[in-house]
Parts: sequence; C-alpha cells; structure tokens
Amino acid sequence: MSVSIVRGRQVVTRVVDRRHIDIRDDAAVLVEDGEVRAVDGFDALTAAHPHATVIGDGRHVVLPGFINAHHHIGLTPVQLGSPDMPLELWFVTRLVCRRVDLYLDTLYSAFEMIASGVTTVQHLHGWIPGGPAAVTDAAEEVIRAYRDIGMRASYSVGTRDQNFLVYGDNDAFLATLPEDLRTPLSQHFDRLRMTLDQEAEVFETLHGRWGNDERIRIQLAPANLHWCSDAALERLSDLSERHDIPMHMHLLETAYQRAYAERRCDGSAVDHLDRLGMLGPRLTLGHGVWLTEADVDKVAESGTHICHNCGSNFRLRSGIGALNAWEARGVNTALGIDEAGLNDDRDMLQEMRLALRAHRTPGHDEADVPTVPQILRMATSGGAATTPFAGRIGVLEPGRAADLVMIDADRVSWPYLDPAMPLIDAVVQRAKTDAVDLVMIAGETVYQEGRFTRVDRAAALQALHDDLQRALTDDEVVRRGLATALLPHVRKFYEGWIDPSTFDPFYRQNARL
Amino acid sequence: MSVSIVRGRQVVTRVVDRRHIDIRDDAAVLVEDGEVRAVDGFDALTAAHPHATVIGDGRHVVLPGFINAHHHIGLTPVQLGSPDMPLELWFVTRLVCRRVDLYLDTLYSAFEMIASGVTTVQHLHGWIPGGPAAVTDAAEEVIRAYRDIGMRASYSVGTRDQNFLVYGDNDAFLATLPEDLRTPLSQHFDRLRMTLDQEAEVFETLHGRWGNDERIRIQLAPANLHWCSDAALERLSDLSERHDIPMHMHLLETAYQRAYAERRCDGSAVDHLDRLGMLGPRLTLGHGVWLTEADVDKVAESGTHICHNCGSNFRLRSGIGALNAWEARGVNTALGIDEAGLNDDRDMLQEMRLALRAHRTPGHDEADVPTVPQILRMATSGGAATTPFAGRIGVLEPGRAADLVMIDADRVSWPYLDPAMPLIDAVVQRAKTDAVDLVMIAGETVYQEGRFTRVDRAAALQALHDDLQRALTDDEVVRRGLATALLPHVRKFYEGWIDPSTFDPFYRQNARL
Repeated sequence: MSVSIVRGRQVVTRVVDRRHIDIRDDAAVLVEDGEVRAVDGFDALTAAHPHATVIGDGRHVVLPGFINAHHHIGLTPVQLGSPDMPLELWFVTRLVCRRVDLYLDTLYSAFEMIASGVTTVQHLHGWIPGGPAAVTDAAEEVIRAYRDIGMRASYSVGTRDQNFLVYGDNDAFLATLPEDLRTPLSQHFDRLRMTLDQEAEVFETLHGRWGNDERIRIQLAPANLHWCSDAALERLSDLSERHDIPMHMHLLETAYQRAYAERRCDGSAVDHLDRLGMLGPRLTLGHGVWLTEADVDKVAESGTHICHNCGSNFRLRSGIGALNAWEARGVNTALGIDEAGLNDDRDMLQEMRLALRAHRTPGHDEADVPTVPQILRMATSGGAATTPFAGRIGVLEPGRAADLVMIDADRVSWPYLDPAMPLIDAVVQRAKTDAVDLVMIAGETVYQEGRFTRVDRAAALQALHDDLQRALTDDEVVRRGLATALLPHVRKFYEGWIDPSTFDPFYRQNARL
Repeated sequence: MSVSIVRGRQVVTRVVDRRHIDIRDDAAVLVEDGEVRAVDGFDALTAAHPHATVIGDGRHVVLPGFINAHHHIGLTPVQLGSPDMPLELWFVTRLVCRRVDLYLDTLYSAFEMIASGVTTVQHLHGWIPGGPAAVTDAAEEVIRAYRDIGMRASYSVGTRDQNFLVYGDNDAFLATLPEDLRTPLSQHFDRLRMTLDQEAEVFETLHGRWGNDERIRIQLAPANLHWCSDAALERLSDLSERHDIPMHMHLLETAYQRAYAERRCDGSAVDHLDRLGMLGPRLTLGHGVWLTEADVDKVAESGTHICHNCGSNFRLRSGIGALNAWEARGVNTALGIDEAGLNDDRDMLQEMRLALRAHRTPGHDEADVPTVPQILRMATSGGAATTPFAGRIGVLEPGRAADLVMIDADRVSWPYLDPAMPLIDAVVQRAKTDAVDLVMIAGETVYQEGRFTRVDRAAALQALHDDLQRALTDDEVVRRGLATALLPHVRKFYEGWIDPSTFDPFYRQNARL
C-alpha cells in the first residue's frame, strides 16, 4: 500500500491534559497501511521517505479526526416535520416522521459529519419495526452507507423492552386512551416489540459479521432506564462483559427521567445501575444532565464515561449537563451531536464551541470552566474511549489508525491573528466547515476540498429527495394522526411530575432576588 | 429613482406576536426611492408595474433586515490576542489589543454582519484616546466605513468618567499598584479622560452632522453604571430628552456589577436609574443578566428595552440573561452580537438560534420558552425600537425603509422539508450565511450572491492585514505588558465580591441533590 506524508503547519498529536496539547510545528504524519507510522518534522520525514506522496502544502493544522459519540438519524426531526419539544412530548410529535431510505438517510448525515471533521460516529439506532430480521436488515443498510462513504462507525441497536411512549407501563397508558387512539397505538407498539432473546440474536449476528472489521464495529445500547427492564439490563450487561464490548445508555436526560428513577429505584438511577454491576469503563451514559453530586462521584470512581450532548440538551429542554462538575471529579467525557446540533445539522466544530461556551459559569476561577484542550479531548480521545475503537483512534501516534482532519489555518487567521493567540485556540474557536480541507479515515482520503471521494453527494441527495416524493403510507398517515392526537394525553400523564423551583442547581447563571 | 419588485416565495412583513408572523405567499415588495411602497401578490404587483426591475425568482424568503443592536469593534479580541475571560479580568487582558485602522476595521465586521442579513447596526464605540478632536475623528472614520458599504448605523461614543479599569476609584486602585505599573496605567487613563462638556460637545458635533441622515444617526451611550458618575448620567439623560435621542447603557452584565451597584446605590442599579429619571422607552439596557424580578418589573412598567447579548454572556462568564422572565412581563427585547458571537464572528442567524435554544428551560409549558416569532421579533422590530430608526425599520410595510434580506428557501429545505414544518421555522433554525443571497438597505442592493456592491472585500481585508504588519508602537508595547502584569492585582481587587452559591436563579437547569 502507498506511503503518504500529511503535512501541517502544526500537527496535533494528542491532548495531554486540560491545559496542554501536544503540538508539533512544521511537522507531518507518515501514513502507511491505514496507520500512523511516525510523526516528525516535515523535512525529516520527506528526507527519510523521498517517494512518499505529500498531502498538504504546510498551511494546515492536522488534528486527530473527531468522534461524534452520540448519533441516531440522517434527516433531522425538523426536516421531517417534528418541531423541538420537551423530550417527553417530542417522543409523541416525532411520530409524524416518515420512514426514510436508511442507506440514503445515513449518507445524508455522514456527509455533514465528515465535512465538519468527524471520522468516527457512534450510531445508536432506535425504533426499528418488524422484528429481528427486519432489524438486522435495517442495521445492514446503515452499515453499508458508512462502508460506502468510508466512515468509521460503532453501530448499535437500542434495546427497549418496556414503556414505549411514556415513562410507564404500555398497557396501563393504553388503557387511559380513547378507543380510536388505543388500537392504532397498540398496533404501533406491537411492531416495535422484540424479546430479549431476539435482541441478543440481532447483536450476535451483527457482531459475528463485523466484530473484526477495521472501520465497523457493533456495540450495545440499553436505550434508557425507563425503556429497559432489569432483565434487559442484566442481559445486555452480560453480553457486554462476555464480548468485552462497550454499552452506550441514555440516562437522566431530563428531570422527568430523574422523577421516573425515583419511582422505580431504591436510590438514584446510577445507584440502580451500580447494583446491577453495570458501572465501569465499558459503560457510557448519554446526557446525564440530572446526575446528582453523589451520582457523579459514583460515575467518577467507577470509570464510567459520560457523553455530553450539549446542543440537544438545549433543544429538547433537558437542561445543562453539569460538565464542570464532571470534569472537576475526573470523569472521562465525550461529545455527541445527537439528533441535530444548534443549526439543525451535524457540525462537530459548532458543537465543540457550543460546549466550550455554554459552561462558562460566573466567577473568576479558570479551573471552573472548560478549556480549549478539554473540549478537543472530548471530541477526540475522550470520545474514542467510549467506542470499541478505544486505543486505536483519538490520537495521532505510531500504531494508531490514520484518522485525521486538515484545517486550513489561513481561514481562521485571515486577515489577522495576533501572535499572542495560539493557533489551536483560534481553530477551536473560529474554524468553520469551509476550513475543513481534507478528512482521512484509516489512511484513506474520504473528503477533500468539498468533495467526497467515494460517493456522489449530489446524486445521493437527489435520490433521497426523490424517494420522499412518494405518497404517505397507511402507517405514516396513522402515525401522523397519533402525533397530534396523543399529545394532550401524554401531557396529562406527566402533570405534577417535576417542580423545578425545588432543584438546587450546580450552575447559577442569573438571580431572581 | 428606479422602481423594483422584490419577489419571494414568502414575504415576511412583520412579527405580530410571540405566536404569529405575518407571512404572504408568492408575494413581493414594491420598492421606490428607498422605501417600501407596497407588499402584494407577485402577479398583482408586476401587472401594476410592468416596467419595474424584478429581483429574485420566487425561491426566496424575504424578511425585514436584521438589527444587531449591540456592536463595538471589527477584528475580534481573539484575533487581536485576547482570550475569553470573565468580563472584569478581560478588561485587563484586552489591553493587549492593538490599535487598528478604524475605517478598515469597521468594514471587516460590516462584511460579516451584512452577509448574515444585518441591515442596521447599533455601534457603541468605546475607549478612544486623545481627547474630543481625536474622538470625533475616530467616529467619522467608523461612520465613513458604514456609509461606504451602505449600511444603516446608529453610532454612539460610550461615555465613561470614572472607574476606568476596576469597579472602583482610579486613584485608589492606582495606589495599590507597584510603581512600575502605576505610572504607565495612570498615563493610559490620562489619554482616555474627557470632561462631560467635551463628551457633550462630541455628541452635539456628530449629531449636528448626521441628525437628519437617512442611514446614519447618532445615539447616546452612558457606558455602564460603574463607568458613569451621577453627574454623567444626568448630563446624558438631559441630552437624550432634549434631542429625543435613545440611550444604550450596559447594565448588570455580571454578578460583580450587581455587587458594585449594591455598594454604590440605595437599592439596585435599576432603582438608581429610576431615581435619576432615566427609565423609559428612550433607554435600552445592554445585557441586564443580573436584573432581579423586582428590576424586571420596573423595566417592564417603564417601557425600558433590554438588548440580549446571548453569545457574549456565555463567552465572558456573565451568566444567562433571564429572557423568559423578561418576555413573560412584556419587556421589549433586542438581540446583540456584542464583541463576537459563538463562532467568534458576527453571524446574526447564528446568534438568533443561540438565543432560541439557550433559554429552553426544563418543563413542558410552551409559554415559558422562546418561540420562533419571538426571536425574529427581537432581531427585527424589537431591535428597531432601540434605535433612532424606530418606526422606519424592522417591518416591511408601505412607508417603511426598504431594508430587507433574501434567504434562499431551497438551501434550508433541500433535500427534504416536510410540509408539516413551516418554512419560516426552517429558515430561523437552519439557514446559514450561504443561504443569504441578497441584502438591500434603503432600497439599494449592498450585497448579492457573496459580493458587496460598493466595496471590494478582498482588497479591504488585504489592506487591514497589511496595516497590522507594522511594528508595535511604544504605547502598544506598554499596554501589552500591562495586560499581563495587572491581572493578579485586578483578581485581588475582586476577591470575595460574589458568592454564586447564594444566588436564587430564574433558571434551574441541573440539580446537585
């Protein structure tokens, strides 16, 4: 396989700690067989490897590719007709969304992610109707898209065996509905139901196929506490341990989920997972907005990771995850764009700086708030640790996968950047997608100067557009009706569940008195 | 003057209330002599005006131009070497910033603003050394840039007559410093000092020149409570009343400013302004993050405006202005990008959706959080009301100025937008600057398909770059030293001023217990 030298005005090899980043000036990355072989001065590498292909002209900052550690779908809910709502109500209004061609839909968001420097995605697939064969087929469509575009993906099917619409028993909720809603919703639930044996079978099948692939791996995803019985949690935990495969679990995304945990568990949701033996470095908590101080201590002590989904938390009225408290206690954190970021797209640069800004709480102590290295760590090695690719990605060092992004330094420093401002700070604070010139995954250039090397973006988007010109299916029509009609019933279900005035917050960013 | 017809798939004429926007389908705006003459169906307007020039092919959403109601400078502090800090410390580290060519610098941010749909800027100019003649000259350089590019601008020089570096007396603070810092800082202060008569003279001179201009107006800007003696506030308030000119005043930007007000005033900062007779529709409060409930009541009852600077508040650790409380009490609000937004630029579309997302506090009640119409109102008619152009801009109706922006609807709806999603919601949530096809100010197209019609952007940026290649001046070298050396002294000054754990917040977005 060919040898290439990726040249940078600066090469970022790794984040050292929350104050330091290892950065080499006028350096380059030697890439062979999909791996980093060396990082050294550009002149030294070219002298040692005169026949290598040189990529870049020295105006770029070369960084480890970013990891979007929490992703679900292609076209966004807004594109599919579902406005931002509080999470519990959004579960209802999202029923309006049409079924899409999963291959094209996956390409759609992959285009956006890669164009913002993402090389690895943690794809958490949810709500696939039709039973195990249909689920496996759907999984393969998603995986095929990532394979075709050349993206590294950690794929999982979310496991849900209860409480499909509200944080309460399906039948009990159905019983509160008028007949004309009960029947279609019950039928909708039926299409989503799988046994735990079937869930395990899907995982084993996919893992058997992709367990040794360079760019595709299969993960486990207990979808959330309310969605999983203890039997489901135990089954997945057992699979995780047996195969040494990470789990990614939504937890305490909203205050309503905290209230649910209080009803179900003796102690907090985290206490519950602890009793089931699930905490530890194989588990990542998605969101974790409503973790208490005691929860954070348990998470930190056990080596459990948290994936911070900053934009999503704002959009779905989930709150603000107390990132500063997690960081202070040494929790490893990742960054996820979730359904869609601030601009209703999948722009990792944007999500990074949203997280950088959103936690700048009042006070003068620098130790209290995120730093540029911290945010870069979350987007690289922090995210890597939550995937089956841990140890393989997230840093640029010999033996690691050659997953990298080249950002045009001139774009962030024109017409002026004072020498007093570190270039990497300018990149993290100022670089937009138009500065992402090249993305390499496993040593292969998949994106260069606005073009994808393997897939025709314009044709794929046209095909996605064309596919959605078809008439609504009967099922889509029924769900569209349910999306509106169920809303008052679900609102009623949650009445009185929370009283925000009783919360004693980590962050105090304004004052009534 | 020529007659033109601006065609839209939709024309947004005005925001009606927080739930409704007046939108006309397949409509157009008839523009003559810089004003809107009619808004009607496209076919009807072309039939009535067959010789008018048609602008647009029917794929755009046409909106009133946006108003950036709080702006200061061109190149950002980050570009000039000053990292984000808590506001009080940032005042120190910002001393590193070089003096720039004000004409080119003003063009720099005007390029960014216009390209994101801003047609009017409220330019609050601060810290001009050298006395009244130098201040007037500097003002004219800024105004010349806005005139050359064709932008509507409300210009003001910030008035400061005390407490130049910390929230305390200049001489008292200087006395705490070692000799090697005291002398250069004292000299720096001297260069910034003007008498109130001189401040008034500058205003009268500029207002005399520009008071009747179509696109340039002069405003008053008592810079902040700590920066103004009561004598200064009274003088400016008197000028404001006499000339019927609005004032824009930073207030309660940080918790430290609240602590300062507690030390200075009998009651809150708002109570103090109330006693001085300053509250009312001629006054806009910039930031207002630390307004209490009682303050908000006074602001609402008096018809005082608040300019919400969402991104800046995050970046400078100011907190989160309680927009939801202001809205609930009926306060008119504007939106300001301040020094620079989330991406260290001046992107009004980005700032709008940051404000849309950042206040989505936990809970299920839709009335509690911002709506798309509300955010659009803040960026148009809400902002207009804080400027001397109130009644002239912010809506597209006959007799108003033809200040508008054309956004390509295809960009936000490709490859798919469900018919269930209102197009305006997609525009506010998804449109990026690449969808801004045309910007018209006072009936003149100033920006079209990425090009400015009156100024050569590339040449201006090159000139700005070239100008900053000069060696540092003696003054710049001295200030660069002060920016570092003063920091521990200023940190010490504020020790013990605030205790965030005592704040009873409006927003509770996570929970420790």
